[in-house]
Amino acid sequence: MDKKGPYMIKDIKKMGQGVQVWGKFLITEKNSRKTKDGREVINLKISDSSGEIDVVVWENCQIGGSIETGKVIGILGDTGSYNNRIQLTAKKLKVLDEDPAPYLRTPAVSIDNLKNKFDNIINTVQDIYLKELLALVFTGETREKFFKAPAARKIHHNYAGGLLEHTVRVAELCLEASRIYPQLNRDLLITGALLHDIGKMKEYEIKVLPEYTVSGRLIGHIVLGHQMVEEALRLLEQKRPDMPEELKNMIKHMILSHHGNLEYGSPVKPLFPEAMLLHMMDNLDAKMYVFINKIDEEEEGEGFFTSYDPFFEQYFFKYRY
Amino acid sequence: MDKKGPYMIKDIKKMGQGVQVWGKFLITEKNSRKTKDGREVINLKISDSSGEIDVVVWENCQIGGSIETGKVIGILGDTGSYNNRIQLTAKKLKVLDEDPAPYLRTPAVSIDNLKNKFDNIINTVQDIYLKELLALVFTGETREKFFKAPAARKIHHNYAGGLLEHTVRVAELCLEASRIYPQLNRDLLITGALLHDIGKMKEYEIKVLPEYTVSGRLIGHIVLGHQMVEEALRLLEQKRPDMPEELKNMIKHMILSHHGNLEYGSPVKPLFPEAMLLHMMDNLDAKMYVFINKIDEEEEGEGFFTSYDPFFEQYFFKYRY
Amino acid sequence: MDKKGPYMIKDIKKMGQGVQVWGKFLITEKNSRKTKDGREVINLKISDSSGEIDVVVWENCQIGGSIETGKVIGILGDTGSYNNRIQLTAKKLKVLDEDPAPYLRTPAVSIDNLKNKFDNIINTVQDIYLKELLALVFTGETREKFFKAPAARKIHHNYAGGLLEHTVRVAELCLEASRIYPQLNRDLLITGALLHDIGKMKEYEIKVLPEYTVSGRLIGHIVLGHQMVEEALRLLEQKRPDMPEELKNMIKHMILSHHGNLEYGSPVKPLFPEAMLLHMMDNLDAKMYVFINKIDEEEEGEGFFTSYDPFFEQYFFKYRY
Amino acid sequence: MDKKGPYMIKDIKKMGQGVQVWGKFLITEKNSRKTKDGREVINLKISDSSGEIDVVVWENCQIGGSIETGKVIGILGDTGSYNNRIQLTAKKLKVLDEDPAPYLRTPAVSIDNLKNKFDNIINTVQDIYLKELLALVFTGETREKFFKAPAARKIHHNYAGGLLEHTVRVAELCLEASRIYPQLNRDLLITGALLHDIGKMKEYEIKVLPEYTVSGRLIGHIVLGHQMVEEALRLLEQKRPDMPEELKNMIKHMILSHHGNLEYGSPVKPLFPEAMLLHMMDNLDAKMYVFINKIDEEEEGEGFFTSYDPFFEQYFFKYRY
Amino acid sequence: MDKKGPYMIKDIKKMGQGVQVWGKFLITEKNSRKTKDGREVINLKISDSSGEIDVVVWENCQIGGSIETGKVIGILGDTGSYNNRIQLTAKKLKVLDEDPAPYLRTPAVSIDNLKNKFDNIINTVQDIYLKELLALVFTGETREKFFKAPAARKIHHNYAGGLLEHTVRVAELCLEASRIYPQLNRDLLITGALLHDIGKMKEYEIKVLPEYTVSGRLIGHIVLGHQMVEEALRLLEQKRPDMPEELKNMIKHMILSHHGNLEYGSPVKPLFPEAMLLHMMDNLDAKMYVFINKIDEEEEGEGFFTSYDPFFEQYFFKYRY
Amino acid sequence: MDKKGPYMIKDIKKMGQGVQVWGKFLITEKNSRKTKDGREVINLKISDSSGEIDVVVWENCQIGGSIETGKVIGILGDTGSYNNRIQLTAKKLKVLDEDPAPYLRTPAVSIDNLKNKFDNIINTVQDIYLKELLALVFTGETREKFFKAPAARKIHHNYAGGLLEHTVRVAELCLEASRIYPQLNRDLLITGALLHDIGKMKEYEIKVLPEYTVSGRLIGHIVLGHQMVEEALRLLEQKRPDMPEELKNMIKHMILSHHGNLEYGSPVKPLFPEAMLLHMMDNLDAKMYVFINKIDEEEEGEGFFTSYDPFFEQYFFKYRY
Repeated sequence: MDKKGPYMIKDIKKMGQGVQVWGKFLITEKNSRKTKDGREVINLKISDSSGEIDVVVWENCQIGGSIETGKVIGILGDTGSYNNRIQLTAKKLKVLDEDPAPYLRTPAVSIDNLKNKFDNIINTVQDIYLKELLALVFTGETREKFFKAPAARKIHHNYAGGLLEHTVRVAELCLEASRIYPQLNRDLLITGALLHDIGKMKEYEIKVLPEYTVSGRLIGHIVLGHQMVEEALRLLEQKRPDMPEELKNMIKHMILSHHGNLEYGSPVKPLFPEAMLLHMMDNLDAKMYVFINKIDEEEEGEGFFTSYDPFFEQYFFKYRY
Repeated sequence: MDKKGPYMIKDIKKMGQGVQVWGKFLITEKNSRKTKDGREVINLKISDSSGEIDVVVWENCQIGGSIETGKVIGILGDTGSYNNRIQLTAKKLKVLDEDPAPYLRTPAVSIDNLKNKFDNIINTVQDIYLKELLALVFTGETREKFFKAPAARKIHHNYAGGLLEHTVRVAELCLEASRIYPQLNRDLLITGALLHDIGKMKEYEIKVLPEYTVSGRLIGHIVLGHQMVEEALRLLEQKRPDMPEELKNMIKHMILSHHGNLEYGSPVKPLFPEAMLLHMMDNLDAKMYVFINKIDEEEEGEGFFTSYDPFFEQYFFKYRY
Repeated sequence: MDKKGPYMIKDIKKMGQGVQVWGKFLITEKNSRKTKDGREVINLKISDSSGEIDVVVWENCQIGGSIETGKVIGILGDTGSYNNRIQLTAKKLKVLDEDPAPYLRTPAVSIDNLKNKFDNIINTVQDIYLKELLALVFTGETREKFFKAPAARKIHHNYAGGLLEHTVRVAELCLEASRIYPQLNRDLLITGALLHDIGKMKEYEIKVLPEYTVSGRLIGHIVLGHQMVEEALRLLEQKRPDMPEELKNMIKHMILSHHGNLEYGSPVKPLFPEAMLLHMMDNLDAKMYVFINKIDEEEEGEGFFTSYDPFFEQYFFKYRY
Repeated sequence: MDKKGPYMIKDIKKMGQGVQVWGKFLITEKNSRKTKDGREVINLKISDSSGEIDVVVWENCQIGGSIETGKVIGILGDTGSYNNRIQLTAKKLKVLDEDPAPYLRTPAVSIDNLKNKFDNIINTVQDIYLKELLALVFTGETREKFFKAPAARKIHHNYAGGLLEHTVRVAELCLEASRIYPQLNRDLLITGALLHDIGKMKEYEIKVLPEYTVSGRLIGHIVLGHQMVEEALRLLEQKRPDMPEELKNMIKHMILSHHGNLEYGSPVKPLFPEAMLLHMMDNLDAKMYVFINKIDEEEEGEGFFTSYDPFFEQYFFKYRY
Repeated sequence: MDKKGPYMIKDIKKMGQGVQVWGKFLITEKNSRKTKDGREVINLKISDSSGEIDVVVWENCQIGGSIETGKVIGILGDTGSYNNRIQLTAKKLKVLDEDPAPYLRTPAVSIDNLKNKFDNIINTVQDIYLKELLALVFTGETREKFFKAPAARKIHHNYAGGLLEHTVRVAELCLEASRIYPQLNRDLLITGALLHDIGKMKEYEIKVLPEYTVSGRLIGHIVLGHQMVEEALRLLEQKRPDMPEELKNMIKHMILSHHGNLEYGSPVKPLFPEAMLLHMMDNLDAKMYVFINKIDEEEEGEGFFTSYDPFFEQYFFKYRY
Repeated sequence: MDKKGPYMIKDIKKMGQGVQVWGKFLITEKNSRKTKDGREVINLKISDSSGEIDVVVWENCQIGGSIETGKVIGILGDTGSYNNRIQLTAKKLKVLDEDPAPYLRTPAVSIDNLKNKFDNIINTVQDIYLKELLALVFTGETREKFFKAPAARKIHHNYAGGLLEHTVRVAELCLEASRIYPQLNRDLLITGALLHDIGKMKEYEIKVLPEYTVSGRLIGHIVLGHQMVEEALRLLEQKRPDMPEELKNMIKHMILSHHGNLEYGSPVKPLFPEAMLLHMMDNLDAKMYVFINKIDEEEEGEGFFTSYDPFFEQYFFKYRY
């Protein structure tokens, strides 16, 4: 994540008001408009791995290259405040030919660490059918793409590696719970946890930021994941023709029902304990991500509560004991 | 539908109170209990193609054979009234080794007539991809099973041939509407209509009455239908590799979204006009079935309204102008 | 729709960026504000029958006459882009004394064509009571006003003739469906379809754009329509005292229940098949209008989906096969 | 309410277990069935003005006359208990030719008392338009029928005079509140209160117990009431052509909006303070009726709470301090 | 409420467009931003007891002191219009060291008048337990703070004295209703009314405008009020050990259930008549406040309806008869 | 759990049809009725720790003692089947003077085992304030009563020890999750878990089966628990006056918000991560209890699915892989 070179490094999260900034960032949003006297104003959002900031580019700014969403730029400017938010006014701006990856958010834990955890969890599965099913799914190109996929476009784990991070967490939560409820089939539970969101690989494509694919919107990750598992089961059929039909249906059901309710997009509700537990742990991890990040993002501000969140329809209590 | 033989024929729908009945019927429900003095009482529901009636079988009734749900019986008895409903008290009852089919409800129109309509509609599809897709799906065993499947376990079209009857109606409604909205792609619409409920073939199995299969409850007819189309598209791929991906996604989307809303079990909402129209026509045919039958069933009773329907939470106005 | 004269014609829908525009349009919205240095800025929305565009009028623009919503103006200016939408900066602007009608949206089919269809449908009604009821309602001034009324203030058919267009469509859909469900009373269905939204004549008044009347908001078009039919039935009473009370109630019920559910403003739910079918076809035509227009409006833009629609809470798939 | 004659009087509310009963009551429900050995059993519900009780009539009971719902009977029998409820086993039963009225529930206050209150409230209205409107509505046959109508078929004030009782209460509540909110138009408020439920006169017909009329179910009391006021306003038009249109609309709106919300059957929501206050007082009186009666009915039973009420989804705390 | 001194007084509610203003006001909101050429723009909202107005402060304005929310300022400026709302452009502005209280909204009736009413209502309570409970709660510092507390942060009675005003109104409404329903326990009802919102004293703190406290958001006024009453009951225990447990529970229940439903934040629903009546009167007073103020605020504007209110999802009819 | 003596032991769960039973059981429900010929029939439900069964007691049965709910009886009888459920017809029945405890359901794990787990979890809390708070709450009589309390009246953990069992499970789930989310305050989480349902001790009283107390229904366990913690915090105040107010509020908030949403009875929603996690684990344990028991209870029956559960509105898939 080398951002050195001719530029002074400046973390966005730590930028104060009234300072000069000289650094490299990623353009994540762009809007331009003409003022009455014909001059061009460009409003940008730029990010590094620590956060995001608004930029205003007036006509008198020196611009090198064509400004586009998804491009890395070098920028020189001054920070001020607009509506109580920090804003950067650009003096010089140059479009660079660089990989945007280092400027995006990343998982809290390194991808390699997550891969290790993932492989360790897979290796605990003893059941022969489930073990081979997982091997058939997480192989070759799918395995590689799975490790780089985001888990959402907004709200939670919306970055490369986010799907892996979320999957590992859910599997760990299921593992712990299986110790507390010994009646549950541990291998079935883990298999469901590892496969539950696999359709998200096809729901989003990451250009710079995750975007919906056509099948992502028309079919949805739940049915796309069901189809991927269906295909793997068809391959497994040849090797393991004795795999019980009920088991196949149970795995498919766990993927289809993991949103827990019809109104959240599952075509069926969870009908057995492992499916219900998977749904609840999936939900828990998404909620924990949001709660922890909301508080983290606004920890610097004053007062005991974050700003109002219109999606969750609440304020978060950010005091930490 | 020959019910002759040694028995006097008596349509259930026309049975009055205080008459002797001698006929053949199908057992659709059975409950038995012991009275305090140790005698056995059996309560049955029996049906013919015109309707259903309650039967009480006391110990002094002559019984031949083993009484079971799904069996055809010959019965001799008298009708009385219990809680204002007609009830039949059995004097003689014999279990017969007969096909239950003629004693079940059937479509309003003959199956052959419906098959003709179905084939005529299929033949109007000109688009080469859609034409071949339909041919691949509705062939061999699938075609035969499709013609015999029910469209529901309760509520509407819940009998062999009901799926065909419902599918033909929805396709006809779509055809008519495509004349009024010329912007719509007629062939796409018809294809969606013919395929929308195909998963119901796997959701129910008819023994005597439709029952859910394991995959019917764990996966549901929407995703089962999606999978059947997915398989046909994979076969078609070999012959027509140039079939547009968007078209494939559109057909799959029409099946997935045909319940119209997430809370009714569709994992995605209709996102283009043909999908929305298909959903609304599917809903219309189900509603018309219920309204017309509710009124038909209670036309003999007095008053202007049917009895209260707890599912629809209303009374129906049964006066016909 | 002659917009010639001294002006160059330019369809709003086809205006690109960076061109000079010289044409006549209708003002549909006006906002003005002072800048810090005391100069006046005026923001307008102007439309022709093809669409709508934003206009900025700076102090240095030559203005002739008093700028007001509902006025036709001649304008000379240049197009630019603001927030990715085309915007027109005015150089010269003159208020004209012209009928605004040609600058408003119109039905997809000509009013005359719709009137013909309407009359043809009315003429198919054979039932003597219903035939005479329709004649009593659609006569004289009411008939003329009905032909010019809008069907909504926003969302769908919100222009003069929109009520006629929507009514004809719903009646056509009902006609087609009555062929598929022969149990339905065709004449009752058509009568209900023609009368269902008649209260909208009193719910809105068109000045330039449809506005709610006082009784539109305090009473609502459903009860206003009920009252119009009630009055016609009272007149008919003298000529046809033998008209069955049940039939009168059925027609009134079809008007009252056509929104289908209490939460959509119907004081009663549809209780017989014709009322239910009318409700569903009314709903279908409104939905089709929105889906077809959404896609049409954004067909030029890139990508497979329209922008997010907050009212329908979805994106529309705009690819057409 | 003379129930003397040859019979011993026995209030249903005070009947204990294991006593002999000899009295006159009203049949409110009847069901009959045949036992296996051919004997007839009849189950009745009978009432007097204090309450209701179940009756079993075996074959060996002496029966005089034809047992029908709505008939007054003299009965001799013994009370026992079935499922913890008191039940009466008939020994002798004779159908009488008596007016059922005295055996029905009545308002807590006498009808004459209520009429006086009603007239006093009407006389306080000073506004000339509203005064004359009330005089036009509450005259002749309408006035007489209004005094005898029920306010509901179930739940609250479901007896002759119930509509008058409820109307007087709501008007009194509005009167009191108008003292606390002097900004409100007192006369408008009282007029709305007196007229709000007038459509119930046409929604129900009392045979013995209130039953829905055809227009009661197809049109509903809200629109029936609107129409009655509409007719009175048309008559008033001739005498008072200067009555403001806004005032007419306000009165009609108060009737239409008095259920407060679309999902409770009002086609429009209350849009001004008098309409909102009327809605809330109407709701309050219905709720108070239920709460006070629930506790009153079960005051004799043990424990601090009534039995579970499935409609209100709660237990009521019946302890009174 | 002396605002004299060197300033010309000008009521905000009566400010027209295009006039010079010279007066003292309270800053209730502040936002600042830099323009492209580096000059500072400050946007303020300022209020007096009659209303609120927007202010723009450009760089060329003479400013004395540090502009902050909650400060009183003297201002000289001109009114113009922006988006059809009046806006004040400041020429001179001086921060003053004055008590902001006179510039805030106040109850419609004077605090002293409300205190008298409050004491009169308390004095009507005869029941010895309830009388002493009220004396224990409304004493010393609590009594004084109660008289100054707001009843809400937004929507209704959101000013010092608002809690007292609302409490007195609800108690008066309950008093009136207790005359109409003699079955109710008047003293219990009044006690519940006086105590129902007492937790709001701890839910908000007034700096200049009401703000939530930490316990206001984490615990909520319903449970805070429950706890205050719990403490008073513990004190009363020593003097009145014979106070019935049921009565204690009833008072606590009235506080806990006064929002009427779980989804509005009451942990229990009202289970006896006094609790239900209190809930409905609390709701009524909040609704009346909103309806009366909505219409009052926009009475000057043209048309029959107020602007759309997104919280209540409606327009209000502001015509007064 | 000694049920020896003169009786043959027979587990209810294993009773088949057509066998003689001789054993001791607990009466959990009683209903009696008279037949037409004056004989008494008594219907009972009786249980042992393995399950529950219906009993019919005819007049010819020898009865010793007074049959009442909550009494232990010795019974001799024969099993038959009624409506496909096993039913016992009593021949001899004697009421015994025995402790009903051994005949009730018990936790899956022994109470002593649960107590050990509970104490171990408490001992892991290091934070001095939280450690002492827990010691103050779980002491003396409260500790003893806590160990014997049920967690519900129906649905889940509805037996003595059920509260302890549920509390231990939720605390264990929180412990495991705190390892996965290191940002969470482990001690705060555990404290919340141990205290969250403490109010249930006062919500129910166990006679034979759990019943609601007056304060259980009028106040509810959430606020009762809040009050118990409030009292302990007041005691702790004297010893630890420096305990942060925020921490006190956080613990109280965790109790108040643990139902997660207002509509489930929490007066506030969870506003920080530990509160949200506690809510979700509480919910998870209740759901797992139901899923595992549903399947366990019906494992003997045929088919892949349990009977329909009207509360959960679903069938459960009972096949176990």
